Amino acid sequence: MPISRLLTISILVLAVATAAVGWRARPQPQKPQKVRLARIVVDSTRLASYKALLKEGVQAAMRTEPGVLSLYAVFEKKRPNHLTILEVYADEAAYQAHLRTPHFLKYKQGAQAMVQELELVDTDPLIAELKIK
Amino acid sequence: MPISRLLTISILVLAVATAAVGWRARPQPQKPQKVRLARIVVDSTRLASYKALLKEGVQAAMRTEPGVLSLYAVFEKKRPNHLTILEVYADEAAYQAHLRTPHFLKYKQGAQAMVQELELVDTDPLIAELKIK
Repeated sequence: MPISRLLTISILVLAVATAAVGWRARPQPQKPQKVRLARIVVDSTRLASYKALLKEGVQAAMRTEPGVLSLYAVFEKKRPNHLTILEVYADEAAYQAHLRTPHFLKYKQGAQAMVQELELVDTDPLIAELKIK
Repeated sequence: MPISRLLTISILVLAVATAAVGWRARPQPQKPQKVRLARIVVDSTRLASYKALLKEGVQAAMRTEPGVLSLYAVFEKKRPNHLTILEVYADEAAYQAHLRTPHFLKYKQGAQAMVQELELVDTDPLIAELKIK
């Protein structure tokens, strides 16, 4: 094969490869994240059990569900049985899938007797790509 | 220099280096993170200006302050002028330093005329090391 032809082929292969990489690297149209606050009041006599149950559920979801981006729960210092969970899901489908997982169902069933109030508040994040360092 | 002496010196240098690395890698005693919820109601006629001001402040803090671990702000869909910020600081000192930064002072001064209610709620996180994926 003459060297000029080899060169032409090489350049063609490179061009196709570059185009393919460029196509893959182009940002995909993003579905919106689902970002929610859950405001919960727990029976204060069951607080330790509730915390253990919630911790198990959160850790299983974070470990096994790529679409569960965060379930960051905080308990108020002055009212320790009042908590807020910042829930971040990749999209609505990820949330719907989460509701069908064994760990969520276990949490939901166990929490029934301990949760006194539950308010779910749909929200828009100021900066959707923000993380926790 | 005889080879045995060179060997002895090499081994000593290695031992000291290993010890130094081990000492640096040992986990430092951790100060507790400061984790807080800020619940804010904004004048609804100033919402766009407030969001721009808050966004600028959050981005500057996240970019320039290693001790500001997150300032994740969410606006309620049903009451768009009600927001909650999950504030995570590495420790109390990081928070105190944040209060003295030019970007925080700019936010604070600008927000004065727009914020109608502000409630600061100190909290304990369920899982201090949890992130947002």
